[in-house]
Amino acid sequence: MEFKSHMPEALAQAHEAAARGEVPVGAVLIGADGRVLARAGNRTRELSDPTAHAEILAIREGCRLLGSERLPGTRLWVTLEPCPMCAAAISAARIEVLYYGADDPRMGGVRYGARVFDHPQCHHRPEIIDGISAGESRQLLLEFFRGLRGNGNL
Amino acid sequence: MEFKSHMPEALAQAHEAAARGEVPVGAVLIGADGRVLARAGNRTRELSDPTAHAEILAIREGCRLLGSERLPGTRLWVTLEPCPMCAAAISAARIEVLYYGADDPRMGGVRYGARVFDHPQCHHRPEIIDGISAGESRQLLLEFFRGLRGNGNL
Repeated sequence: MEFKSHMPEALAQAHEAAARGEVPVGAVLIGADGRVLARAGNRTRELSDPTAHAEILAIREGCRLLGSERLPGTRLWVTLEPCPMCAAAISAARIEVLYYGADDPRMGGVRYGARVFDHPQCHHRPEIIDGISAGESRQLLLEFFRGLRGNGNL
Repeated sequence: MEFKSHMPEALAQAHEAAARGEVPVGAVLIGADGRVLARAGNRTRELSDPTAHAEILAIREGCRLLGSERLPGTRLWVTLEPCPMCAAAISAARIEVLYYGADDPRMGGVRYGARVFDHPQCHHRPEIIDGISAGESRQLLLEFFRGLRGNGNL
């Protein structure tokens, strides 16, 4: 099977989020047939919704389209290591593969912090492929927070 | 300040969820002024949305009403220990106090599993008061799963 990286599309979503004044994280959900099911960037401020992370919005849209609360066979591309909320939603949705860009030592919940997939209470662990376009993802975040805070410390 | 338990209302939401064929968990969000901001029970099946846990629905409704992605000063009553997704959303929303009923060794993310609030990556930890009406909450779940599976093992 030919492998196509969808990280450029996820990064495009992150750029659009930054332009809206949102933390620049983007996600693309790919269906079992290889087509794009959903694209999303963070919208927590716009929607006044702390759950409106890119991953959650993409999962909710994919579930709406398929009429199912589970998304077996799907693959999620995210520019940043998911937080514990998103990691647990990815597990609940039974997403098959999680591709992500930069690690997030400050807020992450996959490699860092709560490590949501690494406990017996996690009933579905996706395959995880990380570090994809990590430099670009991280640079985008650094520029965003530098603009907000006057420095580049994440 | 007079203390009023809102667990009976949360349990009523859990009962209504069970009647809809949803996992019987209920939540009530109390505003800083002591009034009920939102009530919700699980609706993952009805909405085809794996994120539609009682806690998430109550948080989203509260945020919508207040026009804010943060809910400082609010208190959330939940019949069951929140999963990692909900625990992280509770933290992101800056909820002040989390009251919950039964522990959930199988799916929980507060006392069990990912222990979302117990890592440096968690930037807001609510006050936590647990074990409230735990017997009734647990009984409701046992009856629900017994009906589904023909036994009472959670």
